[in-house]
Amino acid sequence: LSPARSKDGASRGYIVPIGGAEEKVKDSTILSRFTALCGGRQARIAIISTASEIPETGRQYETVFHGLTADQVWILPFRSRAECEASQEIDKLMQATGVFFTGGNQLRLSTTLGGTAAARTLRRLNADGVHIAGTSAGGAFLPEHMIAGGEEGPTPRSDMVTLAPGLGLTNRIVVDQHFRQRDRLGRLLTALAYNPFSIGLGLDEDTAAFIAPDDTLEVLGSGSMTIVDPQDLEFSSLDSARKGEPVCLIGIRLHVLVGGASFNFRTRQARAGRTPPEKS
Amino acid sequence: LSPARSKDGASRGYIVPIGGAEEKVKDSTILSRFTALCGGRQARIAIISTASEIPETGRQYETVFHGLTADQVWILPFRSRAECEASQEIDKLMQATGVFFTGGNQLRLSTTLGGTAAARTLRRLNADGVHIAGTSAGGAFLPEHMIAGGEEGPTPRSDMVTLAPGLGLTNRIVVDQHFRQRDRLGRLLTALAYNPFSIGLGLDEDTAAFIAPDDTLEVLGSGSMTIVDPQDLEFSSLDSARKGEPVCLIGIRLHVLVGGASFNFRTRQARAGRTPPEKS
Repeated sequence: LSPARSKDGASRGYIVPIGGAEEKVKDSTILSRFTALCGGRQARIAIISTASEIPETGRQYETVFHGLTADQVWILPFRSRAECEASQEIDKLMQATGVFFTGGNQLRLSTTLGGTAAARTLRRLNADGVHIAGTSAGGAFLPEHMIAGGEEGPTPRSDMVTLAPGLGLTNRIVVDQHFRQRDRLGRLLTALAYNPFSIGLGLDEDTAAFIAPDDTLEVLGSGSMTIVDPQDLEFSSLDSARKGEPVCLIGIRLHVLVGGASFNFRTRQARAGRTPPEKS
Repeated sequence: LSPARSKDGASRGYIVPIGGAEEKVKDSTILSRFTALCGGRQARIAIISTASEIPETGRQYETVFHGLTADQVWILPFRSRAECEASQEIDKLMQATGVFFTGGNQLRLSTTLGGTAAARTLRRLNADGVHIAGTSAGGAFLPEHMIAGGEEGPTPRSDMVTLAPGLGLTNRIVVDQHFRQRDRLGRLLTALAYNPFSIGLGLDEDTAAFIAPDDTLEVLGSGSMTIVDPQDLEFSSLDSARKGEPVCLIGIRLHVLVGGASFNFRTRQARAGRTPPEKS
């Protein structure tokens, strides 16, 4: 799944995009599970708050992860490209068992971290077993192809989405967040129609995809995740559609998954989580 | 350079983006060199003409490569996604020592080949030593991040370029073609500003970059190639620029290279080709 190469025998870390606005107080299923993955009471979590221009954003997550009994939590603000090259910041990053990207603007992430030592270190850490999560803009930034912006609406239309290179943990997924809340099916379909190679993950708020090292994914949270699988696409008119025109797409496969459901990237099979008990 | 993994010991093939309108008759430096690389009189060249809607395009290159004394030359039109999955077409592709993508519309390439057996086979062949060239749209399509379209002009402006996933032979370059002829510095700068990870190659017409397996590049042809290296970028305003506004970029490194000049992707050093003889 990941283009980075693992050390011999090492299993890569989880990749965890979150749809934004995840529950932080009462029923913090997603953040609890992430903390447990990173070692629970031994977890050392680095928070990267670059996407946000509000200083409180990082501190809010610091409080949450402390409350979830992580052993160490620290904020790496990475406000400039120079900070992303500073060896003391990279050293701090390398202590983490898990890295968490806050929300904000994903172009702040790609323009600040892109091509720096911090980005190279993050890809290497993930290949070597460190888990990396991101919420909202932070989730969009994780893969090789990132949705940088776009328009609302359910119908794919030419030029309705802007793609940019992301962090590059994997090139097999494209993430869209606040999916139901901001009516983003059209722009996710358009993003995939450009090249039907990746699989689209449309994440509602308070919903996460936990992508395991064995290339399976489990859904957690209170919303749903829409999987758009274009592998069997028979026809696309994207190459000939004029600006703003709707795009014809024939043969898209779509799954709507809720908490507990799973998806296998190798077989491209989805499974509902809770199978009803057989009648006897 | 390439994210595809080579067989043990195998050296990957050359990656050869061409800026379009390369000389085909009198002084066909670029196509001659490509034929020689692929084996000269033993060369077996597959032409993929998907990008073009003009049936003559493929046949024109067939004639040229025959004239350059390649042993076998054949056209794979790949007109539909179904053809890109057909085993007899894939078998033909696997006979090639070199693959050549014609010009046309790069979105025809990404929407038709993306995610199919043909695209997977091409990445595997290149990793195993088969050379892959593309002219104009065909050159734009070769890397992981492809410029799908955009506006003219030298100044980078927010939203002036459309990126889409390409074939994925390498994620270290972004290619722009007809570079001087269509005034494309602005859109190449904008494409790189999204994430200053890749290196931009702005190829004039009748100009090619021969990217060798040792991650060096040599320029061939009658025009120039502009290298845009954003690694030392200190500041970018792309994340805050409004639609259509110019983008502030501080610290871009730029080289203009002509035939015989070279560039090393590992050291990021450029060298002029013909050093004038020392005076004695």
